[in-house]
Amino acid sequence: MAQYAKPLARLIDSLSTLPGIGGKSAQRLAFHILSMEEQEVKALADALLYAKENMRYCSCCGNLTDQDPCAICSDPARDPSVICVVEGPRDVAAMERIREYKGLYHVLHGVISPVDGIGPEDINLHSLLVRLQKNDVTEVILATNPSIEGEATAMYIARLLKPAGIKTSRIAHGLPVGGDLEYADEVTLSKSLENRREL
Amino acid sequence: MAQYAKPLARLIDSLSTLPGIGGKSAQRLAFHILSMEEQEVKALADALLYAKENMRYCSCCGNLTDQDPCAICSDPARDPSVICVVEGPRDVAAMERIREYKGLYHVLHGVISPVDGIGPEDINLHSLLVRLQKNDVTEVILATNPSIEGEATAMYIARLLKPAGIKTSRIAHGLPVGGDLEYADEVTLSKSLENRREL
Repeated sequence: MAQYAKPLARLIDSLSTLPGIGGKSAQRLAFHILSMEEQEVKALADALLYAKENMRYCSCCGNLTDQDPCAICSDPARDPSVICVVEGPRDVAAMERIREYKGLYHVLHGVISPVDGIGPEDINLHSLLVRLQKNDVTEVILATNPSIEGEATAMYIARLLKPAGIKTSRIAHGLPVGGDLEYADEVTLSKSLENRREL
Repeated sequence: MAQYAKPLARLIDSLSTLPGIGGKSAQRLAFHILSMEEQEVKALADALLYAKENMRYCSCCGNLTDQDPCAICSDPARDPSVICVVEGPRDVAAMERIREYKGLYHVLHGVISPVDGIGPEDINLHSLLVRLQKNDVTEVILATNPSIEGEATAMYIARLLKPAGIKTSRIAHGLPVGGDLEYADEVTLSKSLENRREL
């Protein structure tokens, strides 16, 4: 037996397809799973299937949700005149964690990246334009990542919305709070100097 | 929505019970799983259940197996006169990877650890004694981990087997191959000096 028994090998193979889980981690997880109670393993398998079956994308903002429209879009307490554009559902979760933003979201599910052959029509952008036409939106906050693609996507959307006279803004770049000037990369430091505020 | 939708939250909770997977990793995995094809998620859930249902412990050596006795115990090409005692099934896998050992195994499923209230009767030790009485075994190789508990367990078993006149041996401790003298801890270095061989 130089190799694992078939059911174990299959489990290891399945686990190692997950992101950040290599061969060694998959083995460790598999052995742990085999040492779990049968009902615990069933609960884990159920959670996988239940989540996959019940989570979908909100038809309005594109966020992951178990109801359509999602809890944010259908919340009367939120301000529908502000839309924050993000790359993915995880960015919505990150924004929600600060508990300050009270507007709505729009999830692009990607960024424009000509290198990867992803153009404006390949991301969830058209539905944003439809939303802006149908609703009374005063500001669009562009919160794509501060990467080359995120920056380019933000620029593209800003230019697209300019003729419509909708105010667009970009989240600030600079030193992270608690960060160290000494260890900041040049681009970040240059951005933080460029965007300095008068006190 | 400061929190995730229920199906997603349940998946994150389930994933974060796995070893080495904290809250952040569980979130990343969960979002990845939701982006997978439905049949891929089903395959993963199936692999979990299939492995849990079909893997059991070998009634002879205690190793994880899908047949009883396991592939190693029932292999006529292996030498039944040598038994290598290890802590867990992962140690069997590690030993098998060197492709040199041709004897059988005995899996303890733990080590003696008075601090954690684990005594000799709490590990798979009695069945080793039964095996030694029934079969003609000439050597028992003690390959528990080089930790305090592993060392103590090896000592305990060695003392237990001495009256029966069975040769017991302990795997060598020393510098790992490719290791650096400079970075070796004192105990390892002292062991490697103590166990030096004449050339």
